[in-house]
Amino acid sequence: MSRTLINDCLNKIGEKVILNGWIANIRDHGQIAFIDLRDWSGNVQIVTNEKIEYGKEWVMEIEGIVKKRDDKAVNLKVPTGTIEIEATKITVLNKSETPPFPIDSDGTELEENLRLKYRYLDLRRHRLAEIIKKKHKYILAVRNWMDQNGFTEIITPLLTTSSPEGARDFLIPSRIHKGKFFVLPQAPQQFKQLLMVSGVDRYFQIAPCARDEDPRADRHAGVFYQIDIEISFPTIDIIFDTAEKLMKDTISTIAPQKNIATFPFPRITYTDAMNKYGSDKPDIRFGLELQDVTDLLKNKTDFNVFNSADVIKTIIVPNGSAFSKTQINTLESASKEKGAKGLAYVKVTDTGFDSGISKFLEPLKSELIKNLKLNVGDLLVFVADDLKVANKSLGYVRNLLGTMLNLNDPNLLSFAWITGFPFYEINDQGKLDFGHNPFSMPKGGAAALDSQDPLSIESMQYDLTLNGFELASGSIRNHEPETMVKAFEKVGYGRDEVIKKFGGMYNAFHFGAPPHGGWAIGLDRLLMLLLDEPNIRDIYAFPLSSNGVDVMMGAPGVVDQQQLDDVGLSIVNEKNKKQEK
Amino acid sequence: MSRTLINDCLNKIGEKVILNGWIANIRDHGQIAFIDLRDWSGNVQIVTNEKIEYGKEWVMEIEGIVKKRDDKAVNLKVPTGTIEIEATKITVLNKSETPPFPIDSDGTELEENLRLKYRYLDLRRHRLAEIIKKKHKYILAVRNWMDQNGFTEIITPLLTTSSPEGARDFLIPSRIHKGKFFVLPQAPQQFKQLLMVSGVDRYFQIAPCARDEDPRADRHAGVFYQIDIEISFPTIDIIFDTAEKLMKDTISTIAPQKNIATFPFPRITYTDAMNKYGSDKPDIRFGLELQDVTDLLKNKTDFNVFNSADVIKTIIVPNGSAFSKTQINTLESASKEKGAKGLAYVKVTDTGFDSGISKFLEPLKSELIKNLKLNVGDLLVFVADDLKVANKSLGYVRNLLGTMLNLNDPNLLSFAWITGFPFYEINDQGKLDFGHNPFSMPKGGAAALDSQDPLSIESMQYDLTLNGFELASGSIRNHEPETMVKAFEKVGYGRDEVIKKFGGMYNAFHFGAPPHGGWAIGLDRLLMLLLDEPNIRDIYAFPLSSNGVDVMMGAPGVVDQQQLDDVGLSIVNEKNKKQEK
Repeated sequence: MSRTLINDCLNKIGEKVILNGWIANIRDHGQIAFIDLRDWSGNVQIVTNEKIEYGKEWVMEIEGIVKKRDDKAVNLKVPTGTIEIEATKITVLNKSETPPFPIDSDGTELEENLRLKYRYLDLRRHRLAEIIKKKHKYILAVRNWMDQNGFTEIITPLLTTSSPEGARDFLIPSRIHKGKFFVLPQAPQQFKQLLMVSGVDRYFQIAPCARDEDPRADRHAGVFYQIDIEISFPTIDIIFDTAEKLMKDTISTIAPQKNIATFPFPRITYTDAMNKYGSDKPDIRFGLELQDVTDLLKNKTDFNVFNSADVIKTIIVPNGSAFSKTQINTLESASKEKGAKGLAYVKVTDTGFDSGISKFLEPLKSELIKNLKLNVGDLLVFVADDLKVANKSLGYVRNLLGTMLNLNDPNLLSFAWITGFPFYEINDQGKLDFGHNPFSMPKGGAAALDSQDPLSIESMQYDLTLNGFELASGSIRNHEPETMVKAFEKVGYGRDEVIKKFGGMYNAFHFGAPPHGGWAIGLDRLLMLLLDEPNIRDIYAFPLSSNGVDVMMGAPGVVDQQQLDDVGLSIVNEKNKKQEK
Repeated sequence: MSRTLINDCLNKIGEKVILNGWIANIRDHGQIAFIDLRDWSGNVQIVTNEKIEYGKEWVMEIEGIVKKRDDKAVNLKVPTGTIEIEATKITVLNKSETPPFPIDSDGTELEENLRLKYRYLDLRRHRLAEIIKKKHKYILAVRNWMDQNGFTEIITPLLTTSSPEGARDFLIPSRIHKGKFFVLPQAPQQFKQLLMVSGVDRYFQIAPCARDEDPRADRHAGVFYQIDIEISFPTIDIIFDTAEKLMKDTISTIAPQKNIATFPFPRITYTDAMNKYGSDKPDIRFGLELQDVTDLLKNKTDFNVFNSADVIKTIIVPNGSAFSKTQINTLESASKEKGAKGLAYVKVTDTGFDSGISKFLEPLKSELIKNLKLNVGDLLVFVADDLKVANKSLGYVRNLLGTMLNLNDPNLLSFAWITGFPFYEINDQGKLDFGHNPFSMPKGGAAALDSQDPLSIESMQYDLTLNGFELASGSIRNHEPETMVKAFEKVGYGRDEVIKKFGGMYNAFHFGAPPHGGWAIGLDRLLMLLLDEPNIRDIYAFPLSSNGVDVMMGAPGVVDQQQLDDVGLSIVNEKNKKQEK
């Protein structure tokens, strides 16, 4: 007789079953005991009058009869709460030491590294098992959707060369070619573009991306995963449409309670996003848009802060006049964190403006009320500064207002495309650099590179944002080798350097490269938002810890001399090195 | 108007279409020209009376009308041979230099490294595009089958620690923890077992496995892929059944012409496999079993070679007496390659035995004919040696016979389970070592380790073979920490060493490890057999070359000093090192 999964017992009332699982709990009343048995499918109550000689997390085989519970004993909180198993034979398959932490909670109350050290126990908790199940179901749904929409999954190499994603590479020393190194791919960017040159029409991959960055809260240390696609002969509409329909068709697989706010997704230019929301990844679940009131307020009052600033911007908060001084202080602190010198405010009351600057604004009251369509009860917060600081600081205040006013419903998915990013920017060293992906096509192509001010050139790059997060990034690529060289020359790369760094792609583009473009969606970030999980590490069965180590397996670890000799490397002793100098 | 894929033109006769693709060929007759246009879906003939000012592999946009061809012009060799496109507008989207090799062949005639250098052109050929498409379809079919059969795909880490698969690890130096190294997983063995401890019922993964081995013909250099599964609370039948049904249900996706010879798959003990087929991965598409004739022949004649040997074994080849001397010499050379001192033979003719040793055997003729059920026309080949050499050399001869006699029909899939492998063996250094996977359960468990001669202990390990290849390997695992320590102690590992090397798993097994087992199927090997592709590298879109480098991307490559400093390593200069000594 073969084993039954616990949740399948619901269809077997009156039948004999064999169950295998772990003891989640025991309630021993002496004459009778109740064992809560857990397997991958669920939990069920076992009833026995045997003496209990086993403990929590022991591995058991239970033979018994599935019984319907008395109406009084029904527990609607668990799926099997209408049944119980009357044990006829109980066998211990394996013992367990006492776990170092409870497994019946969601685990967030525990020290994370302790959980990670005993991850095999941590994963027994319901919350994490659900993530594993849903992650599997979601990725499979994505793969089937891709297949049905003409995409071919192609595995690209793990042992490759440096690519220009800009992060540090993980190096892998070559044994056969000593002194040389493979690197783990930061993204399959070059390979997916080479696949377009190969004639693949629509490529996708659930792609591992390895970046040796210092641990970040929003990216899994070491290796993370992308839904990576590329399409040949695309239009921007085809590329956007693919992401939009993918999201629409797959999200309900694991998050049926979530609703897409606007479909197709709105498209917002980078400039508009910065001006209206103070962010290139705006949370558009709510309004509270930034408004430019420079014309209304600059040099119209004696308030010097307004008169000396480049711009004056405001957010009008409906019913915000109920905010306490403490709440307004919190908003001001936030604005200062992002560079504002202060946050002026006024409350619109039925008797007039109420605030420290109301004496300056009072004369403009009727004009402001008319132009800004103000209502009694509104709160206005102002930043007067240069445009960049005004946008950035008010953008941050806006997000905080979203949280304070409970405007960020987690079940509302507000996607938006951000377009029109600058192709170049001035980097921290004051030099011209690529704004984003150097493989994107500059808008206007080679002609734009020849004739336009570099900083005025737009990139055919786009981001997909979701509820204030950057979910995906993509572009129409630069598939012309000469345009590629031109684009790199502007930031100081010679043709030789382009060939040296990206020779594979440069060469390939000479043999009939089709126009192409695509995007990559951050799978971890998407799953976090769909599953309402704030900790990116819990999206992984076996994550690296927040300081980039595997405390369970002891990785990274020490290797022996032979292994170093095999690859012709030696470890630099920092102390010796310093003495040498 | 949006673009149409070429193969979709078949349903659009009379309609206007826009096609995008590459010029596969041009036949220019002056007044009229025929362009063979290729895209991912297929090829089609374009008819134009424009002047041809473009060449092979140029990227084109063709506007035109889909026309039914005249009956005389129909070409049934191509799927679109009943139609052609009357071009109304031809646009060059991108030029191409002349490719360094033809793309319309299957490519096997070309020097492989040249193909790999221009892999993006090589992949345009039909054969390779078909492999990419079928590989995608197959893996997706596997994933859906797994899901439907209760398996959950779980991604295990790429940055991990050394594991005991026995090959060399690829090292990844840690930047944050200088002097320490991650390694790429040789297989997810430990993680999948830890998932069983985590309560996952059925795990699977299309798993990357990285082994720094010298390049082999049957394994892709660097990284290869497995269909990897693990099941908790299994029986051997459940584990076998899973592989059998998976094969049965998925193979037709990409190889409908292939038939499984025997279902469920036959189970052969290791001892029987060696004795009957001279191999632990026998090709059982044909018989030609090895027969032990020691009792019949040893000390029954004056032929000293037979009398001095431990065993005498033979293969009876029906109708083999037609073999020429040259063919028999080929068989003898093969037997010697595997250690036999020679290959005796007799042909059964209607007048008696015919061969150099017939004078010895003639007196035993009627006994041999009776016992071995010989027929006129049979050929018998003999090896007399110790059992190991006799089996091995005749096993090799048997495979050669299979080829010579055309008994290995590629469309017949003869799977078999090989069971009962020895748990321990004597290794090349003359010491007791694990025969196969050290994480397998020894048959009889701890008791067997305590009481049996180690070399007599069987492993609960099994291989799945297909047409003479090892396709998969698996086992019921050793889930008891004390039995694990005992098993390792026999080969000289102390408890401390077990804890040091496999501490994660050793610790985990103390917290309620369920009985579990599984297998991993070599995906590349399976695809090679299903697609009749002899070159494992062609199963990959971007393989490493036969000497383990990526000639297109230039991997492995040189890294700069800063990258070495980041991870605290220096390259050992071999010359300096020798001078020091």
